[in-house]
Amino acid sequence: MPGDLSRLSLNQATTKHWSLREAVDGCVRAGIPAIGVWRDRLAEMGAVAAARLLRDAGLHCSSLCRGGWFPAATRAERAARIDDNRRAIEEAAVLNADVLVLVCGPAPDRDIRAARMMVEEGIAAILSDAMQYGVTLGIEPLHPMFAADRSVITSLHEAIVLAERFDSPSVKVVIDAYHVWWDAGVYQLIQQCGARIAGYHVSDWITPLPDVLNGRGMMGDGVIELRSLREAVDAAGYCGFIEVEIFNETIWKMPGDAILSLMCERYLAHVAPL
Amino acid sequence: MPGDLSRLSLNQATTKHWSLREAVDGCVRAGIPAIGVWRDRLAEMGAVAAARLLRDAGLHCSSLCRGGWFPAATRAERAARIDDNRRAIEEAAVLNADVLVLVCGPAPDRDIRAARMMVEEGIAAILSDAMQYGVTLGIEPLHPMFAADRSVITSLHEAIVLAERFDSPSVKVVIDAYHVWWDAGVYQLIQQCGARIAGYHVSDWITPLPDVLNGRGMMGDGVIELRSLREAVDAAGYCGFIEVEIFNETIWKMPGDAILSLMCERYLAHVAPL
Repeated sequence: MPGDLSRLSLNQATTKHWSLREAVDGCVRAGIPAIGVWRDRLAEMGAVAAARLLRDAGLHCSSLCRGGWFPAATRAERAARIDDNRRAIEEAAVLNADVLVLVCGPAPDRDIRAARMMVEEGIAAILSDAMQYGVTLGIEPLHPMFAADRSVITSLHEAIVLAERFDSPSVKVVIDAYHVWWDAGVYQLIQQCGARIAGYHVSDWITPLPDVLNGRGMMGDGVIELRSLREAVDAAGYCGFIEVEIFNETIWKMPGDAILSLMCERYLAHVAPL
Repeated sequence: MPGDLSRLSLNQATTKHWSLREAVDGCVRAGIPAIGVWRDRLAEMGAVAAARLLRDAGLHCSSLCRGGWFPAATRAERAARIDDNRRAIEEAAVLNADVLVLVCGPAPDRDIRAARMMVEEGIAAILSDAMQYGVTLGIEPLHPMFAADRSVITSLHEAIVLAERFDSPSVKVVIDAYHVWWDAGVYQLIQQCGARIAGYHVSDWITPLPDVLNGRGMMGDGVIELRSLREAVDAAGYCGFIEVEIFNETIWKMPGDAILSLMCERYLAHVAPL
């Protein structure tokens, strides 16, 4: 396939049924130069072995998914979450990942404002670790439909305001088109991010939505203006990897190599510069 | 049941299997003083007969649902939508409805920005009719998960900015807690609405969400801070009806009178002043 795949990355969630080793081998076969790793799959071999696997394959680690999930009902549980984030930072450092993606977590009760404070406190608690290990923390706003069960950080504006509070080059934002495309201010907000963009993820919004959690579409099958958004992200100064992250039962049923082939084709057709 | 139901209204969508006549009779039995009418059910008898039915029952019409749905691929189709909105304005006037709720509609293609322009043009086209008939247009922002198939107006901020562009007492906003609760700026935005609030709707967000379209919960079954939001709406100056609007297959299977009884109980427990 002709076309420049030099900025493309496979987020491991897209090939759910592949192990990390299978995903790495698949990327090599497909000519995809980077991978976004999930911690549950990383646990299959551990960070040190995984780092060696990636290095031997010539693959870059564009992100480690995920840290975050800070709010909890008790002080002890919040401390446990922070400890887990510290382990994630160490793993991200071992992998030399461009960013540790923070999915900030839901409120433990009805008090979403208190939960947002817990997110800020959680990031504050791990910042010195991130700086010490040279790991960038990327606050990823999730679509508002996940506000009750996955993230109280629900808009790019909110993520920017939160990141700016730390005034540190170690705290940035990760933009996923699926989570922010609906926002009337999205282009202005991307511009406002400037050097704070630590990652860019793509998939598509298909209608009717097949599933709240696992209903993301392949690029080109939905309504998101993926090329315009990528241009905006680039114009803001981002020149890093573009991860394809798709949670979709139908796509997961395809053979892994077929997913990667389709993903490369659609990336070139709908995301990459023409 | 003790308690003040004087601001409570049944949005007809909550009792999907009842005709308008059945819903009116049900409200009278339950001591609910107002109803939000849907146009598809209004068509059962026509606006004049419905207005007489409500008047005879002593019921106020808190809203007519719905106008809007402006964006379309062709000029002819957009003109047809505007004509339909003019009929909705006439019906709202006959019913003496407090507001005609505008669900603004999705984009006909991937261009959500163009669709937002079509919404603005559509409202501009019907504004003189609304003023002539003394009907208030209420722009209702929908949850961003409906951005692709129901409304390109996805946040309270966007609805306020749009309403303010007309600078007319005939263009206001309708706030539904289900659509806006996730927004980190929601309390500030409600305050900013001030006299522009033309309606307030409640239901709840339950997890896991049973269905994208018909997954709303009964007040108290979910995570929305319904009392705090109602206090904010009141503090902004709103003193009109509070409509319960629930799309939920499980609730729809209950006998209509049982829905109303539960809804009154939960309204008093979770929404009304203590």
